[in-house]
Amino acid sequence: MLRFEAALAEAEAMADLVPSDSAKAIGEVCHNFKPDWRALAEGLARDGVVVPALVRQLRDAVGEPHDGFVHWGATSQDVIDTALMLRLKGVLAIYLRRLDGLLFALGELRARDGAVSLMAHTRMQQALPFTAADKIDTWAAPLKRHRERLRVLGPQLLAIQLGGPVGTRTEFAAKGDVVANELARLLDLPAASPWHSQRDRIAEFGSFLSLVSGTLGKIGQDVALMAQNEVGSICLPSGGGSSAMAHKSNPVAAEILVTLARFNAGLLGTLHQAQLHENERSGAAWTLEWMVLPQMAIATAAGLEKARELIVSASFVASR
Amino acid sequence: MLRFEAALAEAEAMADLVPSDSAKAIGEVCHNFKPDWRALAEGLARDGVVVPALVRQLRDAVGEPHDGFVHWGATSQDVIDTALMLRLKGVLAIYLRRLDGLLFALGELRARDGAVSLMAHTRMQQALPFTAADKIDTWAAPLKRHRERLRVLGPQLLAIQLGGPVGTRTEFAAKGDVVANELARLLDLPAASPWHSQRDRIAEFGSFLSLVSGTLGKIGQDVALMAQNEVGSICLPSGGGSSAMAHKSNPVAAEILVTLARFNAGLLGTLHQAQLHENERSGAAWTLEWMVLPQMAIATAAGLEKARELIVSASFVASR
Amino acid sequence: MLRFEAALAEAEAMADLVPSDSAKAIGEVCHNFKPDWRALAEGLARDGVVVPALVRQLRDAVGEPHDGFVHWGATSQDVIDTALMLRLKGVLAIYLRRLDGLLFALGELRARDGAVSLMAHTRMQQALPFTAADKIDTWAAPLKRHRERLRVLGPQLLAIQLGGPVGTRTEFAAKGDVVANELARLLDLPAASPWHSQRDRIAEFGSFLSLVSGTLGKIGQDVALMAQNEVGSICLPSGGGSSAMAHKSNPVAAEILVTLARFNAGLLGTLHQAQLHENERSGAAWTLEWMVLPQMAIATAAGLEKARELIVSASFVASR
Amino acid sequence: MLRFEAALAEAEAMADLVPSDSAKAIGEVCHNFKPDWRALAEGLARDGVVVPALVRQLRDAVGEPHDGFVHWGATSQDVIDTALMLRLKGVLAIYLRRLDGLLFALGELRARDGAVSLMAHTRMQQALPFTAADKIDTWAAPLKRHRERLRVLGPQLLAIQLGGPVGTRTEFAAKGDVVANELARLLDLPAASPWHSQRDRIAEFGSFLSLVSGTLGKIGQDVALMAQNEVGSICLPSGGGSSAMAHKSNPVAAEILVTLARFNAGLLGTLHQAQLHENERSGAAWTLEWMVLPQMAIATAAGLEKARELIVSASFVASR
Repeated sequence: MLRFEAALAEAEAMADLVPSDSAKAIGEVCHNFKPDWRALAEGLARDGVVVPALVRQLRDAVGEPHDGFVHWGATSQDVIDTALMLRLKGVLAIYLRRLDGLLFALGELRARDGAVSLMAHTRMQQALPFTAADKIDTWAAPLKRHRERLRVLGPQLLAIQLGGPVGTRTEFAAKGDVVANELARLLDLPAASPWHSQRDRIAEFGSFLSLVSGTLGKIGQDVALMAQNEVGSICLPSGGGSSAMAHKSNPVAAEILVTLARFNAGLLGTLHQAQLHENERSGAAWTLEWMVLPQMAIATAAGLEKARELIVSASFVASR
Repeated sequence: MLRFEAALAEAEAMADLVPSDSAKAIGEVCHNFKPDWRALAEGLARDGVVVPALVRQLRDAVGEPHDGFVHWGATSQDVIDTALMLRLKGVLAIYLRRLDGLLFALGELRARDGAVSLMAHTRMQQALPFTAADKIDTWAAPLKRHRERLRVLGPQLLAIQLGGPVGTRTEFAAKGDVVANELARLLDLPAASPWHSQRDRIAEFGSFLSLVSGTLGKIGQDVALMAQNEVGSICLPSGGGSSAMAHKSNPVAAEILVTLARFNAGLLGTLHQAQLHENERSGAAWTLEWMVLPQMAIATAAGLEKARELIVSASFVASR
Repeated sequence: MLRFEAALAEAEAMADLVPSDSAKAIGEVCHNFKPDWRALAEGLARDGVVVPALVRQLRDAVGEPHDGFVHWGATSQDVIDTALMLRLKGVLAIYLRRLDGLLFALGELRARDGAVSLMAHTRMQQALPFTAADKIDTWAAPLKRHRERLRVLGPQLLAIQLGGPVGTRTEFAAKGDVVANELARLLDLPAASPWHSQRDRIAEFGSFLSLVSGTLGKIGQDVALMAQNEVGSICLPSGGGSSAMAHKSNPVAAEILVTLARFNAGLLGTLHQAQLHENERSGAAWTLEWMVLPQMAIATAAGLEKARELIVSASFVASR
Repeated sequence: MLRFEAALAEAEAMADLVPSDSAKAIGEVCHNFKPDWRALAEGLARDGVVVPALVRQLRDAVGEPHDGFVHWGATSQDVIDTALMLRLKGVLAIYLRRLDGLLFALGELRARDGAVSLMAHTRMQQALPFTAADKIDTWAAPLKRHRERLRVLGPQLLAIQLGGPVGTRTEFAAKGDVVANELARLLDLPAASPWHSQRDRIAEFGSFLSLVSGTLGKIGQDVALMAQNEVGSICLPSGGGSSAMAHKSNPVAAEILVTLARFNAGLLGTLHQAQLHENERSGAAWTLEWMVLPQMAIATAAGLEKARELIVSASFVASR
């Protein structure tokens, strides 16, 4: 949010809407700002969004004569939504790295164990023999598609939001698009027309998250089934201890992948409910998004890391 | 499914896996086939999938000496999943047409009423004035993105499925890819490696459906709010009669858009649960997909048509 | 709905709000009424609820001088909601019978196979030995609780709805409660104050449905796991044939129980969204309820029957 | 969890399964125990459940010769599930208190503003006049039913879980029920047969939570609609400030009730997915429950408090 406010002032200075000195003063304050967290929390509870309290603190810190130019022409949603995109940009990079890491681990496993003979199962029954390479390929193929989806998704998702109070950029007179383009350049995000009441980007991103965790959950389900004592076609390191049965070794990482997949699938249904914004801004739908999206993003990242740990520790065992 | 079986035999004949005469005989039977529906229903209940009963009937109809080549090398899921794609291809064309129709109607409305002055509302409160054109633009923008999504989605989604019993194409000896490519050509669908246990395409398509209905639900919500007697900034034709209050005119089409959006959002969460296929085929997850996806597809199509009807009948009224 | 309209007129005659002759004429028409289905469908599409069109047809059929007393003082929601309760009363009786049937089948299975030694599994791994009776008891216990829940639920759920246009019974002057109590007596449902915008009864009923199908899904999951070739601790009759692998016998009924459980769980989340009625009646939320509840009710009934078939056909096999 | 371990040892001492001195030593350690949190976290990550690491620490703290009697005969799920019930007992008391508080506030509002004339709205349109008392009654009636549901739910939900590794109490020889009953008495919870793989109690509790938040969401939706500037039939204290529009006062508390209702409704669908435990314990389903239930419980409690704040601050304004 501080990066947004600093860049906004700078963009507005370039468009001659804000004095250069004011933009510079705002930028410096934002760079070193230490918020009064308690006052932010109280403001959030009162206003339903943290921005009014934050802007108030920033204006106090900037002081006269520049304080009037803090947050100039913008609205809470411009800050929150653009700040979300700044953070998601880093999150997407993590996903890409973890997808690569998981695919690499699957490649290593395939190189080592690919020729192991396995029994394929359809509808929970033995079907016909195939190999570990065949199995691994069914895990890797959707992950490769997700990597491609991520490459396409990034530029569509990561757009700045700048609309002003009702999304028309009227506050910037004729210079709205100039400010928006400059803001985008400064924040290194694509420019976009105001989209604050159009949540398709967010809902589509949530879908991506659930696609990834769904694929991981399928891998986890397969591993848990193959690791059954009676099947024994995959071997996991000991771990997953029991408080009552010393002989047990539970497939904890595999279970967690199933859990995260079902968790994200359910949350996706809720996130899509949040598409129904009333008119130019919905406090209710927006808050719902806040409650759902972060959990989904974290669950996806955790699943990718957990899946890699699972794969690097697993070895296939020829079916009897 | 009949188109699949006919094309499969033909593709296999081209690959010298099936005699040409057999392929021709199978093609003719498929072209004119009248199933015993009751026996199909019984087969579905017994086998959990209709294909074994259908293949049995087809083999009887084809007769000796060709009957052994019906469904040769394929499995139930090859038929069902590819037949789904054949139908979805037509469904996607309907969506494209209806998106175009709705965007056209919005354009007409904008041309006629765009200059009408409205009050924008944020968080259910009056914010600042803007125009009907501003409002309409927030409805049209995501629809345009959906049209673009549809163009990208089609070629990724509409792939043939041909894998044989466990998805390895082993039954076709070295000619699996030849048969698959020829099958794809004959059915005018993209070729793809077997994906029967990888449901990301289906889950992503469901997400598209919920994105569309979510946008429509937002339009419906806006219209219902603007059509409130106390607001009166949109005028709908009379209709939506009440059995008790003759003076009422309920915004039925707008309400339905809200309903369909919430319906599809919820179903999307369930569809994504169906990503967790156990091993090489999950009867449970696959059946869940069958119960959810068709309703979502229909709800989306109905919403697009209902939205167009709503828009062509609406007119904006300047805010007081 | 016809039963409601007839009983309403009769109750109103008892309260001297409607002439006895009119009530009698209305009752006779309702008893033999053949609707114009096409006109009902058109009315439903136009009004968002079928009642205005139905009342129009009834009034035409009743004719002068009694037609003005058809649906007197009531609103669409009184008809729809009370008619739902009349049907649910029969549905609950089906559930009770099927729960009894399933519990009986489990008792028979326990009597025959209860002493069979099984391996218990926790977290998908072998734990310690126990018996088929121990396993069956974990299936039966929640079903017995569901039977008890059903007994408690019935009288709370199955209440008449009579409120008039805005739920205040004002239309009946001082005789609203008299009419409501008489209506309840005639329809053999409990009386209740108007509840049309309070959907907790419906949402709670949906929860019951998902509790039942959840228990059945757990049974199905257990059976599918035990029926794995490698485990083989439950034996199912052959069936569940494959179009490609003659040796297979798929646990179709068990899979379906899993499917129905996940289907109902997801729909429950959507049904609970429909609790948010705006003001005195929500077209959007009410329609959502119509789209979700019937599927859930059917899925539950189907699951109970499928579960009984599964149990009567299964036999336990001692773990190796 | 510490209370459980202390009471278990004491109950086992009463049943002569554990020496009295050991039970006393265990009880004292549990009373003053300071865990090594980092080691607990590592244990949770490794074992998928915190109990093995906790028991190890407890045994170390108890030391010889009593350490072997810590957690004697019990399994992780006995600890976790019973500890959940101990906490939920307090949570239910909070709900009851907050329901009472909210109903009291509604009663006060009704006493003061009940006679205010309002316009009722059905399907987002003006219907007929009624009063603030009529409106408040539709809010209070389901809350009163929830209070009754809570009274019935408590004794059914809050049962101890004691089953041992596979839920058969075999470890306690013939004294399983004696230990269980004594444990229940010591923890002041109802006794129950082992239910660890039967999650209907939890799923039903989740449904209760969503019923409560659904009712509150309906109140919030009504308030937000009535607080629209154009309607103005409810007056809220100023607050809900905007960063861009000084004149605005957003109905933040009302919006949050809508948010929490949609949040809980969606999570309920996911919680019900967690009913499908595989065999005698499902790591995947159990973990899913852990991720969903606490959020729902907190959202419900927050909603009740937020609703009370909203009601005490609101006043009705006669419809124009």
